[in-house]
Amino acid sequence: MSYDIAIKGVEIIAEKDMGLCNIGISGNKIAYIGSEEIVSNKTINGSGHIAVPGMVNAHTHAAMTLLRSYADDMILMDWLENKIWPVEALMTKADIYWGTMLAVVEMIKSGTTTFADMYADMEKVAEVVEETGIRASLSRGLIGVVPEAATKLQENIQLFKDWHGKADGRIQVMMGPHAPYTCPPEYLKKVIAAAGELGSEIHMHLSETKNEVSNCLKEYGMTPIALMDKLGMFEVGTLAAHCVHVTPEDIQIMAKKHVRVVHNPQSNLKLASGIAPIPAMLENGITVALGTDGVSSNNNLDMLEEARLAAFIHKNATGDPTVIPATTALKMATVNGAHAVGFKDLGELKIGQKADIVLYDMNKPYWYPRYDRTSSFIYAANSSDADTVLVDGKVVLENGQFLTIDVDKVYAEANKCAVRLTK
Amino acid sequence: MSYDIAIKGVEIIAEKDMGLCNIGISGNKIAYIGSEEIVSNKTINGSGHIAVPGMVNAHTHAAMTLLRSYADDMILMDWLENKIWPVEALMTKADIYWGTMLAVVEMIKSGTTTFADMYADMEKVAEVVEETGIRASLSRGLIGVVPEAATKLQENIQLFKDWHGKADGRIQVMMGPHAPYTCPPEYLKKVIAAAGELGSEIHMHLSETKNEVSNCLKEYGMTPIALMDKLGMFEVGTLAAHCVHVTPEDIQIMAKKHVRVVHNPQSNLKLASGIAPIPAMLENGITVALGTDGVSSNNNLDMLEEARLAAFIHKNATGDPTVIPATTALKMATVNGAHAVGFKDLGELKIGQKADIVLYDMNKPYWYPRYDRTSSFIYAANSSDADTVLVDGKVVLENGQFLTIDVDKVYAEANKCAVRLTK
Repeated sequence: MSYDIAIKGVEIIAEKDMGLCNIGISGNKIAYIGSEEIVSNKTINGSGHIAVPGMVNAHTHAAMTLLRSYADDMILMDWLENKIWPVEALMTKADIYWGTMLAVVEMIKSGTTTFADMYADMEKVAEVVEETGIRASLSRGLIGVVPEAATKLQENIQLFKDWHGKADGRIQVMMGPHAPYTCPPEYLKKVIAAAGELGSEIHMHLSETKNEVSNCLKEYGMTPIALMDKLGMFEVGTLAAHCVHVTPEDIQIMAKKHVRVVHNPQSNLKLASGIAPIPAMLENGITVALGTDGVSSNNNLDMLEEARLAAFIHKNATGDPTVIPATTALKMATVNGAHAVGFKDLGELKIGQKADIVLYDMNKPYWYPRYDRTSSFIYAANSSDADTVLVDGKVVLENGQFLTIDVDKVYAEANKCAVRLTK
Repeated sequence: MSYDIAIKGVEIIAEKDMGLCNIGISGNKIAYIGSEEIVSNKTINGSGHIAVPGMVNAHTHAAMTLLRSYADDMILMDWLENKIWPVEALMTKADIYWGTMLAVVEMIKSGTTTFADMYADMEKVAEVVEETGIRASLSRGLIGVVPEAATKLQENIQLFKDWHGKADGRIQVMMGPHAPYTCPPEYLKKVIAAAGELGSEIHMHLSETKNEVSNCLKEYGMTPIALMDKLGMFEVGTLAAHCVHVTPEDIQIMAKKHVRVVHNPQSNLKLASGIAPIPAMLENGITVALGTDGVSSNNNLDMLEEARLAAFIHKNATGDPTVIPATTALKMATVNGAHAVGFKDLGELKIGQKADIVLYDMNKPYWYPRYDRTSSFIYAANSSDADTVLVDGKVVLENGQFLTIDVDKVYAEANKCAVRLTK
């Protein structure tokens, strides 16, 4: 048989060395991996490269790339009130479009093929996803304590109706209640009811800071996790970002209710939020994914950096250097992320999986010697060596060249937006 | 006047935007920085690039690159006894040479122009430094509890006599007593006496783990820092690697005796050693540099990764996101490192400083937008975008091509060494 695309002579990231492989792709699926000679319409030379499943950035606010390096090394409320919020208030739909475009350029060039986004004007983000060929789970950020609360909810419902399952199935839509401190229970009940009716899941910030948890305890007599459980949120399916300050009881609830967690190690360190008890979550069978959070608290969208950091900070936090080995960190950045944000048959290099594949150039000093490729990828390699990227069986980056994006235009337009927003 | 080299139309990393600059280099020094047109024998086009002082890796064991990805995610003693030490015992002078060559390729390609190394067969390391054009502070690792203790000390003395100040002043030599638990006081007295006679300084691992400190307290009734102070080590000048478990009293001693500290954040996390109280050291005026440690506990030699990690982990450890801002992290990776490892007039882009300059390609998504270049370098950029590197006024990497190293031969020879060592 003939495949649509063949990647030839490539190394594969796997628990043991498989030697050089050929990968056959039919439609949007991986149809063959092995050493046999295969025929295809299009051939990609994988020589000197390693194939890795596309990484999944399971929590971000893509358009915030426009604020990269605008405000750093500041106390949280000073940062939000005097820098971030005033600029966000000025953002137009064009800013959302070009900020997200810049984010997608950065993600694809560093081997991320799926992202879960929460922001405003999400139909512009959906357009970017459709045009560029990347995969995404989108949610409209919902604030329940403002006059536009009901309008925002309506926008999220409309986003679901317009875009869920669209772009050849590359777009999923979730409801995006921002956080317990911005969404009171009465509002959350409406969000959960809407999610239940639509068949949508929920993407929410939960238990990010100590303050959030202690305020929630004061106001409602229970932790954010327990409160969401009581409100019935977890019955519709929840992607919970952060979960830094969770109790052992919270972890039991999360495990029982199949809450998927997005760990954002770099953002949590930069904002001094704390270190989430990820090893305990993994031990309890919780699906833990990784995310960068927005660029203004990171300051990039490099998922390999997150995977490396996750492996390292938990070794130190637990005092056990065997915790979160490289293989676990890789799963968190790929297959766990895919499942967490709502995509099936995604995140592994296996026959039948969707063909989201990244080739990294191994002709770099940190790829020598090569005792253990997973270890070298997670602990030593550089995500910017991604030079060929396929999403859903389509090539979006080939030998470092974008096939779906005019990169120079994106840089120029994003710069223009940034200058106007901060003048 | 005419300069030997001019770098034209380049951005400069500085506290405020200086616009596009020309840099004039005469001999091994920076002789001009500004916007005037300058003439030169050789011109480097700096367009689309940012010039940053070469980074200083102030603590490493370069030849250990041969063990990259050989043994990870293991308990310390299992790792050392069953993996690292048996292979190290097999290493020949050729292994040291090619392992160090691989390390130097990786360092130069990621913008590191100076390293402080402690290992065996250091004359091979000196040869690599001389041939490649990089800058280094070298010390022979000394163990006092083995039959060869006196021979090793003699080797370190000979290394000083043969190489200190050589390679056009690019090589410094220090004495390298390994650690308090491998060098008893009687041996250290001999090392300190030799250092005093030679006019050499000392490079030593100090207070890396809790165990080291508690054993030292048990055996000698004082902390490693207090013990070294009592032995007179700090009078000859000391570069102290790690200093994770130091007391407030230790910090007072270190400040008073001008001990320079090398913080190795990634290695300390990976081996679960703890987080050094760096902000307290900086507040007390101690010079703190950064290092990667050996590749087997890192697993690369990426100094930008260390600077980023240092900024992030201390924000979280102190609960204060203003701690170690980007400007401080940059100083730790550059000028503090230069001074810590014993080089003067090095580590800043200023007239009169030695011309160790790295140009990073800014045509990358994470360099957009550009509100604050120091912040984007430390928090967002990628060290592998270093494509032109000068050390001591000489170009060693130009547009990604090495001028002093046959890189393919280095990869091939390092691989051969690795295969033989672990077969």
